[in-house]
Amino acid sequence: MYKLITKQGNARRGEFTCPHGTVQTPVFMNVGTQGAIKGALSAADLEKIGCQIELSNTYHLHLRPGDALIKQLGGLHKFMTWNGPMLTDSGGFQVFSLASLRKITEEGVHFSSHIDGKKIFMSPENSIEIQSNLGSDVAMAFDECVENPSPYDYVRASCERTARWLERCRIRLDELNSRDDTVNPGQVLFGINQGGTYADLRIEHMKRIAELELAGYAIGGLAVGEPTETMYEIIEAVEPHMPKNAPRYLMGVGTPSNIIEAVYRGIDFFDCVMPARNGRHGHLFTWEGIINIKNEKYSTDEAAIAEGCGCPVCTRYSRAYLRHLFKAEEMLVMRLAVMHNLYFYNDLMARIRAALEGGVFEAFRREYSPMLDRRI
Amino acid sequence: MYKLITKQGNARRGEFTCPHGTVQTPVFMNVGTQGAIKGALSAADLEKIGCQIELSNTYHLHLRPGDALIKQLGGLHKFMTWNGPMLTDSGGFQVFSLASLRKITEEGVHFSSHIDGKKIFMSPENSIEIQSNLGSDVAMAFDECVENPSPYDYVRASCERTARWLERCRIRLDELNSRDDTVNPGQVLFGINQGGTYADLRIEHMKRIAELELAGYAIGGLAVGEPTETMYEIIEAVEPHMPKNAPRYLMGVGTPSNIIEAVYRGIDFFDCVMPARNGRHGHLFTWEGIINIKNEKYSTDEAAIAEGCGCPVCTRYSRAYLRHLFKAEEMLVMRLAVMHNLYFYNDLMARIRAALEGGVFEAFRREYSPMLDRRI
Repeated sequence: MYKLITKQGNARRGEFTCPHGTVQTPVFMNVGTQGAIKGALSAADLEKIGCQIELSNTYHLHLRPGDALIKQLGGLHKFMTWNGPMLTDSGGFQVFSLASLRKITEEGVHFSSHIDGKKIFMSPENSIEIQSNLGSDVAMAFDECVENPSPYDYVRASCERTARWLERCRIRLDELNSRDDTVNPGQVLFGINQGGTYADLRIEHMKRIAELELAGYAIGGLAVGEPTETMYEIIEAVEPHMPKNAPRYLMGVGTPSNIIEAVYRGIDFFDCVMPARNGRHGHLFTWEGIINIKNEKYSTDEAAIAEGCGCPVCTRYSRAYLRHLFKAEEMLVMRLAVMHNLYFYNDLMARIRAALEGGVFEAFRREYSPMLDRRI
Repeated sequence: MYKLITKQGNARRGEFTCPHGTVQTPVFMNVGTQGAIKGALSAADLEKIGCQIELSNTYHLHLRPGDALIKQLGGLHKFMTWNGPMLTDSGGFQVFSLASLRKITEEGVHFSSHIDGKKIFMSPENSIEIQSNLGSDVAMAFDECVENPSPYDYVRASCERTARWLERCRIRLDELNSRDDTVNPGQVLFGINQGGTYADLRIEHMKRIAELELAGYAIGGLAVGEPTETMYEIIEAVEPHMPKNAPRYLMGVGTPSNIIEAVYRGIDFFDCVMPARNGRHGHLFTWEGIINIKNEKYSTDEAAIAEGCGCPVCTRYSRAYLRHLFKAEEMLVMRLAVMHNLYFYNDLMARIRAALEGGVFEAFRREYSPMLDRRI
């Protein structure tokens, strides 16, 4: 399913094939948590801004509208009318970040819904059943995402349980994929490496889950409070132990510079709420850095957000108009800002892939990694 | 500028030509108050949903971002990237409905901004100057919009002043259109009939403003609290005194049934916030009546909002998906709901025009006028 096309240092240019198509990597997954993209973007819009693979959320869709309903209606692809590749996360991260009154046992997690306080139990099997009902192309393993920093012994015990949970996820997915009424019987499983900021635990856990020969492997539990340098060190420690013949996914990361640096260290898949969240606050990405469109100096600026950008916003609207919409609190600006930022991220990945193909990724990294995260 | 194509009873099928194009009438103007359509719709979207003429707001744009800035950037057409016909209202309605601390004199109105309380003075000349800076194709006269009901003597005095203000508007617009740096020197003026619910005052005022031989005439001050039957009676009283060779515009109206009934009584132009406002509350128009998409019964409904609707929403998304987005409070649903409702209004006008062309408007009215406003 993963084919390596070329390498430059540890950076990999490849492609990943799944039931709904082939994804060119490195790739940024566009986040549609509840089956819709924040900022009033639709599946139709994703088709126009270079999105290759959409990411939705097991926890949120389980609560609303319910995965059984989505299965009844033919699966999430049909429900939200997105016909390309799709990954669902397992709900693990949300259970540990959003829900309250958690109680973790070997069997799974008891928690209360963040919407109405309803008591819910989720096991590795439940998470996989939900993801099977949604019918994504890639299901993520159900894991415990520990805070950074957490005590060494707690993280070690948690990793061991997450490894046992992964085996249960695999067994359950195999069983579900063999059923006649499965939405997407070609759905595959990605494991998730944990271990906090302890390199030895990370490596030990990675070695253990690599034995399962899964379709892909993620690094979870980073970008949750630790210094950026620590994140890079952990990637560098774990990467040599990740299978070469499967994609690597750094969960929830990150800034443009984080992405360039992680590609440099061998990562293929990314997802992050940053383009949407920054957009909603008026922070827009350009190839010189991040501008705050609400700034007074843009009030008469007739230029596009980012020079040379081919997105539907930059090819039509001026900075002055966007600034006006922000000041006037028009909902339209949420859409235009998020649309530009998502296009920018997808374009960033296309430029990274082109740089890898052209053998100039090192120069690309030197030029853009220090520049793109700057606030200008 | 107005050409009558065919009549059926008092109902008129015509066309209105202005600097940015020709509008087929009867027509519904799509409201972009602050230079953007509520519900995250853009000028690019208006092109896709059958909008013929866009309406923006003098009062709002004067406050934010300022009409001088918009003139500096080449006018509102360029600023919001809408290249079709455009009408601006005069700000009169907003001054009398939104602003506080009003004081009316013969010269104009002193009031406080609803945004920051700033003291502002607006005269007929100011309103026309602002509209000239915006560069719309049709400028509306600055009038006093009295509440219904208001005392007879007050309404009579107000009508006389509004008539004097209209003459001042015309003089100012002629002068501005003759200048070298005018954004849109082909801008024309529509007068506004007032007179509350008093048929004699309405008729007297209409006769007086008709003498000015303006490019068009509006009926203002209706749909502001009086019974619907009263509104129809006033239209019937005024219409015989409206020039035949100019379009008639019923301001701020209305429901689909209101529009059909007003076309029947000789009206050509409409505008209303209803499609956008209803959309934001989940009330969606269909050819059988209005549905509330939040209703539980739509949770598994795979049909489009309205059978046979050709809008970008109905051709792609299910009622079940839209209901989910409403329950999940996803901003996307605001956009999809408003887009459908605006398309429905534009389509309603196209069907009215087709019925007039086919000589079957009476049958159309009998079938749809009682049906379209029903909540089903």
